[in-house]
Amino acid sequence: MNIDAAREALKHLEIDDNPVSVRAKSRDFFWYSPVLKARLDHVTADFVVAPRTEAEVIEVLRVCHAHEVPVTTRGSGTGNYGQAMPLAGGCVLHLVHMNAVKAIHPGRVIVEPGCLLKDLDAEAGKTGQEIRMFSSTWATATIGGFIAGGSGGVGSCTWGALRDLGNIIRLRVVTMEAEPRVLEFTGEELHRVSHAYGTNGIITEIEMPLAPAYDWVEIFVATPDFPMASRLASDLADQDGILKKLVSVYEAPIAQQFFQRVAPHVQPGEALLGLMIAPHAMDGFLTFLARHPGARLIWRSDSPDWPREPGRVFEYGWNHTTLRALKVDPAVTYLQVRYAAPDHVAKVEAIRAAFPDGEVMQHLEVMKEGGRTMFAGLSLVRFTTEARLDEIVRIHEDMGCMIFNPHRYTLEEGGRQSVDDRQLDFKREADPKGLLNPGKMIAWDEPGFDYGCVYAYRGMRGQ
Amino acid sequence: MNIDAAREALKHLEIDDNPVSVRAKSRDFFWYSPVLKARLDHVTADFVVAPRTEAEVIEVLRVCHAHEVPVTTRGSGTGNYGQAMPLAGGCVLHLVHMNAVKAIHPGRVIVEPGCLLKDLDAEAGKTGQEIRMFSSTWATATIGGFIAGGSGGVGSCTWGALRDLGNIIRLRVVTMEAEPRVLEFTGEELHRVSHAYGTNGIITEIEMPLAPAYDWVEIFVATPDFPMASRLASDLADQDGILKKLVSVYEAPIAQQFFQRVAPHVQPGEALLGLMIAPHAMDGFLTFLARHPGARLIWRSDSPDWPREPGRVFEYGWNHTTLRALKVDPAVTYLQVRYAAPDHVAKVEAIRAAFPDGEVMQHLEVMKEGGRTMFAGLSLVRFTTEARLDEIVRIHEDMGCMIFNPHRYTLEEGGRQSVDDRQLDFKREADPKGLLNPGKMIAWDEPGFDYGCVYAYRGMRGQ
Repeated sequence: MNIDAAREALKHLEIDDNPVSVRAKSRDFFWYSPVLKARLDHVTADFVVAPRTEAEVIEVLRVCHAHEVPVTTRGSGTGNYGQAMPLAGGCVLHLVHMNAVKAIHPGRVIVEPGCLLKDLDAEAGKTGQEIRMFSSTWATATIGGFIAGGSGGVGSCTWGALRDLGNIIRLRVVTMEAEPRVLEFTGEELHRVSHAYGTNGIITEIEMPLAPAYDWVEIFVATPDFPMASRLASDLADQDGILKKLVSVYEAPIAQQFFQRVAPHVQPGEALLGLMIAPHAMDGFLTFLARHPGARLIWRSDSPDWPREPGRVFEYGWNHTTLRALKVDPAVTYLQVRYAAPDHVAKVEAIRAAFPDGEVMQHLEVMKEGGRTMFAGLSLVRFTTEARLDEIVRIHEDMGCMIFNPHRYTLEEGGRQSVDDRQLDFKREADPKGLLNPGKMIAWDEPGFDYGCVYAYRGMRGQ
Repeated sequence: MNIDAAREALKHLEIDDNPVSVRAKSRDFFWYSPVLKARLDHVTADFVVAPRTEAEVIEVLRVCHAHEVPVTTRGSGTGNYGQAMPLAGGCVLHLVHMNAVKAIHPGRVIVEPGCLLKDLDAEAGKTGQEIRMFSSTWATATIGGFIAGGSGGVGSCTWGALRDLGNIIRLRVVTMEAEPRVLEFTGEELHRVSHAYGTNGIITEIEMPLAPAYDWVEIFVATPDFPMASRLASDLADQDGILKKLVSVYEAPIAQQFFQRVAPHVQPGEALLGLMIAPHAMDGFLTFLARHPGARLIWRSDSPDWPREPGRVFEYGWNHTTLRALKVDPAVTYLQVRYAAPDHVAKVEAIRAAFPDGEVMQHLEVMKEGGRTMFAGLSLVRFTTEARLDEIVRIHEDMGCMIFNPHRYTLEEGGRQSVDDRQLDFKREADPKGLLNPGKMIAWDEPGFDYGCVYAYRGMRGQ
């Protein structure tokens, strides 16, 4: 690794090597996890380069390849699995300037990776369209980061996950070789680089499907108890004629303790739903809601009546729930759980019964998976020790609920604990020196790893 | 019934009492069914009135109420359950002139009932929108007839059925009383008059949801056998990220025998799928299709390569399948079958095994029902006798497959063989003399009917 030579060769580009700002640009939301916070807090790159064109990306990759400098790509750094943390130092490739919306057609957009989700929606909105799904960090996250580091979000209750066929149309990717190549991926090939944390190529252009934009009505509903809320959420998702973009469920006392502006409007013990419903589906939705006596609509964004408005309802959901909880109680962390159909409602109840004392608080996001309604759990957890956290994970797994562990920084441990051969094979081809976001793909570094303990990347630069 | 007095009182309106054209306007597609053909072929009204405004509708209903003249409402007469047949004679209320598209907003349209589905889509298309679902008679049927006499269609593979919450927003209805009232129905009240054949009120204005309009790619796919086709269809419907408007499945020899322009492109024994896929979902769809070795894409409307183009693919589906078969073989008729989730694929196979000799040919339309993919069967049947047809119905029912019998002209027999109390209660209120489309609601005429035989309306005017 010859940092100085690489930096010198790239000095005509926008380089930042001020240690304070480089460190800031070397961090993401890894600190959501006390486990990752303990392990990654010291991590920093040597310099940051912010290319303006694909040609500059190619140049960075060629130079860093020549000088064996690791390259970790950054969107806005809103991931919370440490996706953007440069474990081995080196170069952070910051795509902030590659933010152009290149073309918008009926049903699709062509965009550069550094475009903020919010800005992308603003452009698409001029044609009456919007992206199908986005993370709750919509206001600050990039589309490239969402694809490389995310899996779904607001909109997944209708459209499923990013990995589902049709939810990404095309990705243009630059490899890290002596002479970087530019490749275009569609279909099955998309999986080589989507949700790969930038470990095997740099996405420089994205083609995504668009959906019609509506003035979504954002809604909070309170229910007397949690089972009613989770059942209502699942049934609402099964209403094919009611168009919706968000269906979130929060067990008490999440709203009461962590949602400051909502808290005055819910009773102790009440569960909360956060919803986004198309305006022309509101009549159908209210009819549906009236079939659930006891459920109270307490807020709707199209007729606000709270002295202090709550803001965007989706900024209570997905990983903003954890963020809001952390702000109130730094000892809170979370887990990502898959409650698969068709027993998703019952599975959540079984987990609730296993943690009767409030150590695990249920936060569910409704998704579609293979045509079925299911729950993604982003459960809040009152953290005590790593050992106990691991035990909680094990209890979930033993009860048939898969965990995507957000206290791990590798693709495998944060995923299904198995090698994705498509990603690994493409890394062999596109990053032969293993310089792209090193330490994030166990299969590359340590093929025999048995997941018996937390993976510790040997190449991590010391404190 | 004082026909002459009513006609005289309405003579300032557009009246038709030429027996030839009145008979033509007294007929729908009842002749799809040999059973209905035998019973209803002689049916005709005494006169037809074609109002231009809601005020004229009110006048017709007031006058006919006063003179006890039955009123049967007509859109375009494309129903095939005899919905528009004036069994007791009297007046046909022809809504042909009430066809205005009154307003189009994002996600919804306000329209008069006599507007053709095709014309409605043309207007909505100016704002980049279209109706969520339509019958295969899109080119000739009206929106009012679709709502009053239909249940779903092209688009139901995504949006479910018309009865599902959100698929109709508002209906404006005129009652048939001494002084007709005008009522506005939303929510639960919609079910009073939707799919009620105009037996308890006349719809004069409709508010419907709209979806984004796309240049749908219309597709035929051939598969080596039928189980592969039905499985592929169901799996495609479960692909949440692939936006589609039509998924039809045809068992051999339907395409070979009845689809003239498709026949040269399928092999003996091959099953056929008819599809409409959003253009921006084509890459996802082709990726999906490639996962099914043996399935062959034989036609796509965006790159036509047949010497004789097949026309609109949806005009092979839903009830156009039966129409095409009837044109080739007048001895063919059909049944409507519900193959409910989650065993829909297996249920169809069980039915196929029960009719191994080609007496029943499977034609499936994929729908969503309660969030689940299922099949509506519009099976073609080689008709021999009414007794055998009834036996075929019984075999289906005994095997757990509900039949919506298209060889019956009553709401109950064509539906779930049970009284819809919402419709009946509203008829008591809105049509106290029982003059609206008489003979179509058993619960009104003969509350004790036990469904032991075909219902025969006692008030039917003789031949």
